[in-house]
Amino acid sequence: MKEITLGIDIGGTNTVFGAVDLEGKCYFEGRIRTQDFKSFTEFVAELRFAIDKHIGTLDFSHQILGIGVGAPNGNFYTGSLDLAPNLPWKGKVEVAKEFKAQFDLPVWVTNDAKAAAIGEMMYGAAKGMRDFLVITLGTGLGSGFVVNGNLIYGHDGFAGEFGHVIVSHDGRECGCGRHGCLETYASATGIKRTVYKQLADSLKPSSLRSVSFDLLSADMISKAAEAGDEVAIQAFEYTGQILGSKLADVVHIFSPEAIILFGGLAKAGELILAPVKHHMELNLLPIFRNKVKVLPSGIHGSNAAVLGAAALAWKELGFSVK
Amino acid sequence: MKEITLGIDIGGTNTVFGAVDLEGKCYFEGRIRTQDFKSFTEFVAELRFAIDKHIGTLDFSHQILGIGVGAPNGNFYTGSLDLAPNLPWKGKVEVAKEFKAQFDLPVWVTNDAKAAAIGEMMYGAAKGMRDFLVITLGTGLGSGFVVNGNLIYGHDGFAGEFGHVIVSHDGRECGCGRHGCLETYASATGIKRTVYKQLADSLKPSSLRSVSFDLLSADMISKAAEAGDEVAIQAFEYTGQILGSKLADVVHIFSPEAIILFGGLAKAGELILAPVKHHMELNLLPIFRNKVKVLPSGIHGSNAAVLGAAALAWKELGFSVK
Repeated sequence: MKEITLGIDIGGTNTVFGAVDLEGKCYFEGRIRTQDFKSFTEFVAELRFAIDKHIGTLDFSHQILGIGVGAPNGNFYTGSLDLAPNLPWKGKVEVAKEFKAQFDLPVWVTNDAKAAAIGEMMYGAAKGMRDFLVITLGTGLGSGFVVNGNLIYGHDGFAGEFGHVIVSHDGRECGCGRHGCLETYASATGIKRTVYKQLADSLKPSSLRSVSFDLLSADMISKAAEAGDEVAIQAFEYTGQILGSKLADVVHIFSPEAIILFGGLAKAGELILAPVKHHMELNLLPIFRNKVKVLPSGIHGSNAAVLGAAALAWKELGFSVK
Repeated sequence: MKEITLGIDIGGTNTVFGAVDLEGKCYFEGRIRTQDFKSFTEFVAELRFAIDKHIGTLDFSHQILGIGVGAPNGNFYTGSLDLAPNLPWKGKVEVAKEFKAQFDLPVWVTNDAKAAAIGEMMYGAAKGMRDFLVITLGTGLGSGFVVNGNLIYGHDGFAGEFGHVIVSHDGRECGCGRHGCLETYASATGIKRTVYKQLADSLKPSSLRSVSFDLLSADMISKAAEAGDEVAIQAFEYTGQILGSKLADVVHIFSPEAIILFGGLAKAGELILAPVKHHMELNLLPIFRNKVKVLPSGIHGSNAAVLGAAALAWKELGFSVK
């Protein structure tokens, strides 16, 4: 018999799912469009239908033990989503309850960044570590902080909003309604804003001058930097300076073994890792210097989010990877 | 038979010790002068002598189960002190090893702020809580962060240096050699510096104009504020603004049930609690507002440090208060 868990990542555009064994092998992967469903119940029913089709392709020796769900604002304690922007369902969505009703399996819910942290712990760059921080650099900045082998959920499940620590009280406008949050600088969106600021402030030539804000992506900024574009290189340096300095603050609080950068902007590799590490080290007390690793995600391929969600289920079922 | 643990707090001037039962009752308390001993071995021998005299006054039904030690830079994992400023012994001091040799009992070591956090959890304001933060406002700013009932020691035991997160890179000179650390603003020393800055910047009359920097204490600033001294009141407001804003950052990371202020400056009560809470709330995302308690220490009297150190021993022995 082969035991597997289902990992489900609910995103603003697509919901990706897959079946994963304890060693992180993915047996199938599929997706449905999140935005196509006006009610969450319809959405879960369609997801059940899509997953059943895949399960039909496996032989009968597979047993599904549980379901892990990663979703924006997913709350581990309540199993619900509160006020999730970008999702079509408003108000409180009872994720765990509706999945249990549909699948009759144990279900655990958390947000995408915390699922990523558990994925890194079981299958990625944090394998064997007990104290580390995962920072996801996508549209926003998410975080999953692990202490003594366990995620910090906080008193009510809302811990990990590192994207909303303040860089500067008179800083950039944030989607949360405040100003100067870290994610307005350190994220795929943040580096776009930095590029546009530099295009405004300087007269440096740049291939990015021909790209509109709407079309500009972190990937285009990486490619420009690799081709020697000074504005793009400076944007990575500035992003690294701000993120590195804030990571130094959390190193003083947590003294972690490693900090792992995950998600869209982190795919830029050394372009972002090098300035982050440099500026983090510049801001550390001597007892912390040259001890904390800054690593790229150790989970590769398109199924990182599915692996993270499945890892949540494995962890909560009491399993760990040898 | 009455089971007790010994709590020992090694301070720059005095070392205080006491015997504490699981309910937090203190059976005796004494002190020796830390600075009188050139070698740590001599110090521990004298401490043994002093403690034995007290134990002689107890009847034979008392059994000592273990020793908890709080000391500047005390490392829980190694049981040693590294580079402790203000202590007469230089280099690495093997605290746990030397205590074990002298007392033949299990010994646990941590720094004073972490011991305070365990004390609050067992006997004080955090009784029954599993997620809370303790901030000690003394000469510097120390911190003990508790997640899911356990202290964060970090990968190597050095976690909890919240006093050295950066308020402003071009801020006040810190004893650590850097600039703008939180403890240069939010501590008994920090508020003195704030008073002096205000005495320089403004022409406001103040009773504190007659006091030298060396003689000025947090207690004098409290008394002046209570008497309506505007400079002193403003100094508390400014301290609360800086500390409250940084506490908002850690609330986003930890989502704790409470933040407990401990130590010299915290004795000012509402003078410091009110502005801290006000500015913390101003800087929180909506999901965190009006949820996190800001409390004064729940441990009263001179034996707070002894209780914290003894609580460390009780916790590590596997006991908890009902």
